[in-house]
Amino acid sequence: MCMLKIEDYIRDIPDFPKPGILFRDITPLLESSEATETCVQQLLAMIEGQKIDKVVAIESRGFFFGILLAQALKVGFVPIRKPGKLPYKSFKEPYNLEYGMDALEIHEDAITEGERVLVHDDVLATGGTARAACNLVEKLGGKVVQCNFLIELKSLKGIQKLKNQEVRTLLKY
Amino acid sequence: MCMLKIEDYIRDIPDFPKPGILFRDITPLLESSEATETCVQQLLAMIEGQKIDKVVAIESRGFFFGILLAQALKVGFVPIRKPGKLPYKSFKEPYNLEYGMDALEIHEDAITEGERVLVHDDVLATGGTARAACNLVEKLGGKVVQCNFLIELKSLKGIQKLKNQEVRTLLKY
Repeated sequence: MCMLKIEDYIRDIPDFPKPGILFRDITPLLESSEATETCVQQLLAMIEGQKIDKVVAIESRGFFFGILLAQALKVGFVPIRKPGKLPYKSFKEPYNLEYGMDALEIHEDAITEGERVLVHDDVLATGGTARAACNLVEKLGGKVVQCNFLIELKSLKGIQKLKNQEVRTLLKY
Repeated sequence: MCMLKIEDYIRDIPDFPKPGILFRDITPLLESSEATETCVQQLLAMIEGQKIDKVVAIESRGFFFGILLAQALKVGFVPIRKPGKLPYKSFKEPYNLEYGMDALEIHEDAITEGERVLVHDDVLATGGTARAACNLVEKLGGKVVQCNFLIELKSLKGIQKLKNQEVRTLLKY
């Protein structure tokens, strides 16, 4: 195994998207196929031994490693998107923002009763979107086996919104 | 080789996103890892023999097969996104919508001079976003080796906006 460190491929961007916020940019990681593959292998190691039927990922940055994980696991991939983006009949789940509300949607037929689901996103921040994604999976009768993140921003305590879930993260800041 | 047909995994959704539009939904394709892998292999076959240094894909549905192609080719992946989504210094390229304008952005350091780029999106419709994506790649000094699509909606004549490009598409409607 090489000595490649995923954290060397995460770029800090101060004051994005708002003043005072330090954004963790994963685009340098995506620009290296070797680092991306190493990251996929490390994410897979976090779910080793678990039976997974579907990978569900959250728009848009969750799509990158979500689809790579699904293909590596040889299971189906399901996108969770912002309202109005999914073309077929969908369930909607609202979540709180700092000011106001937003929502996520999933296709009604995306998960079947009893399927074991890996929920993936790039970053666990306040946990609002991850909680909404888990609720959508459970509304369709799926079981969330693990919430799987590339990065956790610990100071935002998103993990508190996922207390009844198994949560695994590759990098913690 | 199996007899799996990609078109069997594309779902027609009438009147989405607007009345009179027939939307080609790729989520059933993503839900089958076997169909997704077959699709990746067929997209790879379209670029066989071409040297590619980077895969550039357009937000958001272009990300699915864009990152899979990049990993299969063992080259870097670059997202092109709507304004305000990319955190680092970016170039912006406007394009026409039916009514009004929109724009796409790419990170300034995403492509280096002379790199050979595959531009991927799921659907070639009017060609406005694909043209803008090619312009962004060229602005950074990259050479667009091929514009690569899963689906072409022929009636919208998007190919006319890509006259100076090599364009390859898996499915034509």
